Amino acid sequence: MILDLAADSPFSIHTLPYGVFRPSATEPARVGVAIGTAVLDLAALAATGHFDGPALRGGNVFALPSLNAFMALGRPAWDEARGRVQTLLAPGLNGRPLAPGVAEALRPIDCVELLLPAAIGDYTDFYSSREHATNVGSMFRGPDQALLPNWLHLPVAYHGRAGTVVRSGAEIIRPRGQMLPPGAPTPVFGPTAELDFELEVGFFAGPGNRPGEPISIRSAANHIFGLVLVNDWSARDIQRWEYRPLGPFLSKNFATTISPWVVPLAALEPFRRPGPPQSPEPLDYLRDDSDWAFDIHLAATLQSEAMRVAGMPPLVITRTNFRHLYWSMPQQLAHHTINGCAVRPGDLLASGTISGPMPDSRGSLLELTWGGAQPLELPTGETRRFLEDGDRLALTGWCQGDGYQVGFGEAAATVRAANR
Amino acid sequence: MILDLAADSPFSIHTLPYGVFRPSATEPARVGVAIGTAVLDLAALAATGHFDGPALRGGNVFALPSLNAFMALGRPAWDEARGRVQTLLAPGLNGRPLAPGVAEALRPIDCVELLLPAAIGDYTDFYSSREHATNVGSMFRGPDQALLPNWLHLPVAYHGRAGTVVRSGAEIIRPRGQMLPPGAPTPVFGPTAELDFELEVGFFAGPGNRPGEPISIRSAANHIFGLVLVNDWSARDIQRWEYRPLGPFLSKNFATTISPWVVPLAALEPFRRPGPPQSPEPLDYLRDDSDWAFDIHLAATLQSEAMRVAGMPPLVITRTNFRHLYWSMPQQLAHHTINGCAVRPGDLLASGTISGPMPDSRGSLLELTWGGAQPLELPTGETRRFLEDGDRLALTGWCQGDGYQVGFGEAAATVRAANR
Repeated sequence: MILDLAADSPFSIHTLPYGVFRPSATEPARVGVAIGTAVLDLAALAATGHFDGPALRGGNVFALPSLNAFMALGRPAWDEARGRVQTLLAPGLNGRPLAPGVAEALRPIDCVELLLPAAIGDYTDFYSSREHATNVGSMFRGPDQALLPNWLHLPVAYHGRAGTVVRSGAEIIRPRGQMLPPGAPTPVFGPTAELDFELEVGFFAGPGNRPGEPISIRSAANHIFGLVLVNDWSARDIQRWEYRPLGPFLSKNFATTISPWVVPLAALEPFRRPGPPQSPEPLDYLRDDSDWAFDIHLAATLQSEAMRVAGMPPLVITRTNFRHLYWSMPQQLAHHTINGCAVRPGDLLASGTISGPMPDSRGSLLELTWGGAQPLELPTGETRRFLEDGDRLALTGWCQGDGYQVGFGEAAATVRAANR
Repeated sequence: MILDLAADSPFSIHTLPYGVFRPSATEPARVGVAIGTAVLDLAALAATGHFDGPALRGGNVFALPSLNAFMALGRPAWDEARGRVQTLLAPGLNGRPLAPGVAEALRPIDCVELLLPAAIGDYTDFYSSREHATNVGSMFRGPDQALLPNWLHLPVAYHGRAGTVVRSGAEIIRPRGQMLPPGAPTPVFGPTAELDFELEVGFFAGPGNRPGEPISIRSAANHIFGLVLVNDWSARDIQRWEYRPLGPFLSKNFATTISPWVVPLAALEPFRRPGPPQSPEPLDYLRDDSDWAFDIHLAATLQSEAMRVAGMPPLVITRTNFRHLYWSMPQQLAHHTINGCAVRPGDLLASGTISGPMPDSRGSLLELTWGGAQPLELPTGETRRFLEDGDRLALTGWCQGDGYQVGFGEAAATVRAANR
């Protein structure tokens, strides 16, 4: 097939994100790279000797149904693979013929099945947006206790459920559970009335560390394989009732949707920016002078069933940016391991909801509607406090280069009615 | 070898716990059953046709380095395997010769390497002991808020870290981290001064459920494969500073020790007892009339380095019982999945610290010393508020039958000084 690279394609030669796909129902899953509207089959290329550098030769880590083995190899292998793929695809950008075997390794992206990119051993969710923590804290505990005393000293986080991280496109079944209606003496049971999304970005860990040996903040770059969009679905009414004192549990563990393509850290280098100033100054193990914010535009769109039936396009309900995050990925990783906790290749560390400073840059409906008090209006005349059955919620993310994009694609799902 | 079955052996013919072991450094790991001082190699027996019932024939789930595949098969396979092992071992109890191949499949337990019994996909830790929640709540939030309003309505839980669950015997390196000293304006960094154990029992999930399809409380028995001892190591000073609002994180995720032998639910049947009365009555999905407490004696012992050097035996520092738990395993499982959350074979669900009603039946040092105010005295004259480097902490558990035990063995580890 021929490379089709529009200027607004998320998967330009500058992106080259990794994913796991099955070419057909009868073929085994393997690793590929997205380019334009195609997937490049790295397993096929490796089998024919196209990855012969010192870090990759001798095995075919791409002929596996997850990226974990490739993630485990570390930065030399990541750099080697990316350089090789760029070299193999470069002629196609100028309309020149691709090398033998390369054209045959391209498949239309619409004709393959995309799978979860990694076998996620552990999923950690941070809480690293100051604006989000302040908004939610105000609503849950009042403005006086919005930001708890520890928040400015450490990147607060909790463990999510690895086994319910699902690929983009998998339906989300409305969860049921216990809730305490305002003023009620005892809890009730039923489907959540406050189903929400959370716009997040997560990163997959690379080689990992041994128990008792923290990853220093200065070596963190060698442990960040790449980034995906993350929607940490949340049931706010269940959350309010269950979360004390051990944190959210059933309100979040029913599903977490991630985008299928992992954008390597190398693709984001042109978009590196200084992060927000940090005051008070963090403790030594969290201190680093280099720039670890990235200018990644983020948006969430909502399309109700009625909008879909009427042929209306999805409505953008928020626009924010990854660079707003207070705590950086290296700070998250250094903190996560400072106690000796081991991180394994394929572990997912997510940012927490990314809210910006403006009312229309908030990363959840809880914040956008201020707890439901200010419903969103949809073009059909419908309103939304929280998500309704049939709603399709999609996260998108992209870096805008000069005439090209480094895009994340989307993490999207449709809400289905609760099971009876 | 000959079966050596003392009356006080934890691994009687009534126990038959499953584990994963490596016979020697050069042989692959496989599944075995502990009997007296021996391990019965189930992989070898299956390879020679000893498991030929309808649920197990056709594959060898025992020739794998984890119990997950066996757990996934469900109760018919579990019953078939247990029945077959009992039949194979029965002659040895009466001094009669074992069938051909069986004696050859026995290895001295001291000569094999015991591994983690399962590849743990997700580890959930409950908080199901009313006495523990009341004790800890009193210390952290004061007696007025000891038991939060949700506690009597649902089994509170949070996600722990699956990747740092380690086998009994693996050293525990003292974690470092942030703490806020009492009265200090800003946090400090260093090794925890309040390293604690938590005496828990966990169960491994069997077949599991599909997303959106809860496990009903009445079908829970088909999803409980077996039980292990769990020590959820905790750094209390780190915990106090980090835990709001998302729960414990670095204070617990550095390590969790479990016992190597999984005691099947079937072995515990003779010790089934009524649980504590529950008031208020739980919501429908948590209601079940059958008895789901078990009379499992539990104890923790402490042996300091000085005690070891002086040849003093470990000191029993607490004795409690699994039957004190307020929320049962079926209630935990029904609650965990009521929102549609999927549970996979090999997931570990732990009870939370099991404290009894008496001061000497508390399941953590935090409670035994009441936050360090009442230090323990050791026979050397040493005292303990929390664990010191060189301390060996062991959990043990057993059911006392008439002339036999159904024992868990131990979950033990020695504390090593923090890395620099």
